Amino acid sequence: MSASSIDLAVIPGDGIGPEVIAEAVKVLEKAVAAEGVELKQTHYKLGAEHWLATGETLPDEVLADLRRRDAILFGAVGAAPGDTRIPSGIIEREMLLKLRFSLDHYVNLRPSKLYGTVGSPLANPGDIDFIVVREGTEGPYVGNGGTLRAGTPHEVATEVSLNTAHGVERVVRDAFRRASARERRHVTLVHKHNVLVFAGHLWKRTVEAVATEFPDVTHDYLHVDAATIFMVTDPSRFDVIVTDNLFGDILTDLAAAVTGGIGLAASGNINMDRTAPSMFEPVHGSAPDIAGQGKADPTAAILSAALLLDHLGYTAAARKIEAAVAADVEKRDGDARSTSAVGDAIAAEL
Amino acid sequence: MSASSIDLAVIPGDGIGPEVIAEAVKVLEKAVAAEGVELKQTHYKLGAEHWLATGETLPDEVLADLRRRDAILFGAVGAAPGDTRIPSGIIEREMLLKLRFSLDHYVNLRPSKLYGTVGSPLANPGDIDFIVVREGTEGPYVGNGGTLRAGTPHEVATEVSLNTAHGVERVVRDAFRRASARERRHVTLVHKHNVLVFAGHLWKRTVEAVATEFPDVTHDYLHVDAATIFMVTDPSRFDVIVTDNLFGDILTDLAAAVTGGIGLAASGNINMDRTAPSMFEPVHGSAPDIAGQGKADPTAAILSAALLLDHLGYTAAARKIEAAVAADVEKRDGDARSTSAVGDAIAAEL
Ligand SMILES: CC(C)[C@H](C(=O)O)[C@@H](O)C(=O)O
Ligand SMILES: CC(C)[C@H](C(=O)O)[C@@H](O)C(=O)O
Repeated sequence: MSASSIDLAVIPGDGIGPEVIAEAVKVLEKAVAAEGVELKQTHYKLGAEHWLATGETLPDEVLADLRRRDAILFGAVGAAPGDTRIPSGIIEREMLLKLRFSLDHYVNLRPSKLYGTVGSPLANPGDIDFIVVREGTEGPYVGNGGTLRAGTPHEVATEVSLNTAHGVERVVRDAFRRASARERRHVTLVHKHNVLVFAGHLWKRTVEAVATEFPDVTHDYLHVDAATIFMVTDPSRFDVIVTDNLFGDILTDLAAAVTGGIGLAASGNINMDRTAPSMFEPVHGSAPDIAGQGKADPTAAILSAALLLDHLGYTAAARKIEAAVAADVEKRDGDARSTSAVGDAIAAEL
Repeated sequence: MSASSIDLAVIPGDGIGPEVIAEAVKVLEKAVAAEGVELKQTHYKLGAEHWLATGETLPDEVLADLRRRDAILFGAVGAAPGDTRIPSGIIEREMLLKLRFSLDHYVNLRPSKLYGTVGSPLANPGDIDFIVVREGTEGPYVGNGGTLRAGTPHEVATEVSLNTAHGVERVVRDAFRRASARERRHVTLVHKHNVLVFAGHLWKRTVEAVATEFPDVTHDYLHVDAATIFMVTDPSRFDVIVTDNLFGDILTDLAAAVTGGIGLAASGNINMDRTAPSMFEPVHGSAPDIAGQGKADPTAAILSAALLLDHLGYTAAARKIEAAVAADVEKRDGDARSTSAVGDAIAAEL
């Protein structure tokens, strides 16, 4: 794809969200301007602060409006963990997850790459460069469950993980497709099919079936518990991981930590059928404890903007942002730059 | 408790199970003999090999017989991942999990401790010494779910996580009790209550309620994804973690990796009400790839025997085994000793 303008929705959100998004927009503008592309922005006020002020999570009109944009750049949402004014989960479920589910973001793409000098907590991290293709619209995230006799000694609470052939197959095929375009061409399915036999077998059978379409891609399987072990003992063994919504949530935070921290971890919530705009966001949260202090690292948001450009077909501009980040990260020596200083430095590297 | 004999059930299982259990029994015998206690053993043939030979997973008579023992020492079960003769999950569900559920092993206790010189994959592991109290009889492990239209493009597979006030409260209270006997007296609840709101809120409310009974124990909360980050960036922050069956499975493998490997990770499947025998097993699996070669590290099995003695009230003998393991581990320098050589060395340290 290539067009002379991008119609971008921006949802800065709460906490450090607006701070990091400002830098991502700065870098994005510069990157596309160099290609002669105009960046039109529409900003949306959504998140915990907005809910406190208005009681709105994600009104239907706003969702309808968002559908008209080419893509969404998302910061972070959520109040401080101790903030009792906001019912836990309401912003996550009725806003962030509602976006992912309504816009059918079935590929939750999360690359993990260790940049040369950035500090991994591992003594011998090796050469880490893999992507996690996390399913984004099913599994234990569907919100299907309930509570009986809440607050009594007889309370029962359920959570239902829903998995469909349609939902699993499309994300597995996406993982194999991405793997076939990479050097190592290897897919690892992560699940727990020895315990979660119904969902697990659907995933396993689907991988076996889709694998026959990709004879040049190898594949293997790991239980999720074993996968966390390899994530700290041999992370370079991974190329493309495909997994369900919950296991993907857990593994990608761990992967981010192992590759130098959540400050660098980007993600895309992608609708590969392009029936609705895709959404790009740093993996980190709103970090209320450091909000407003100009301390947040905007790198993850900036790398998310690169994933956004990739999705819209501006691959050259995406590669330039990634190269600028790599160049900046290589120079980091632990000194604490402000959020905007990091944004400026990456923009300057472009 | 103290008696002049222990009526022990031994289930060596598959792969390296029999090899590591032989060493655990060797050390256990020596430790209790020193206290004038006799160790009566009944061995049970169960596991994947037994299933292949007989089609039996865990017959009712065997379960009834096991119920009469004081405690169970368990090795590991499971066939090679590529072995297609055994339906995936059958041994796990119909034997291992059936034991945990039938004998009401609601406290799945998994200590994590970094011994001085043992290699953690972390560059700066710090002083790691925490326990995970994993719920053992509920959650996504109940086997409640199903498959509709299997093998068709319209397949739907579900997994239901069941959580009860009864089940959550007893394990949370156990975690607080254990915390109150430790130096730091801190409990961390790990869940994902912003997404799994029904189960998550039951867990969170229960922790708040039980905490009031333990005014000298502090507590906090982490989402499971964030917990994995701290597990590699700051594991020494943990004292007692309480969590559900699935999150506990994932976190304890990661914790084992971070504290020098699955070769050292012990566990107890404990029925704190003593209505049935408790079962003690290394966290590792049957490792068919190294089975029969005398290569397996029996330390996790030996430490599991110490947990068994603890549970039966032989705390002095338990502490002696732990001290013997610590002494042996301190001397390890990466040379590959055989399974029985490690067992002999630990027995000699006693
Ligand atoms: C905030 C939360 C709902 C979300 C998730 O669990 O998906 C976050 O952890 C993430 O990984 O994007
Ligand atoms: C073998 C499997 C069923 C088991 C579990 O998931 O509990 C194992 O991983 C464990 O942690 O003991």
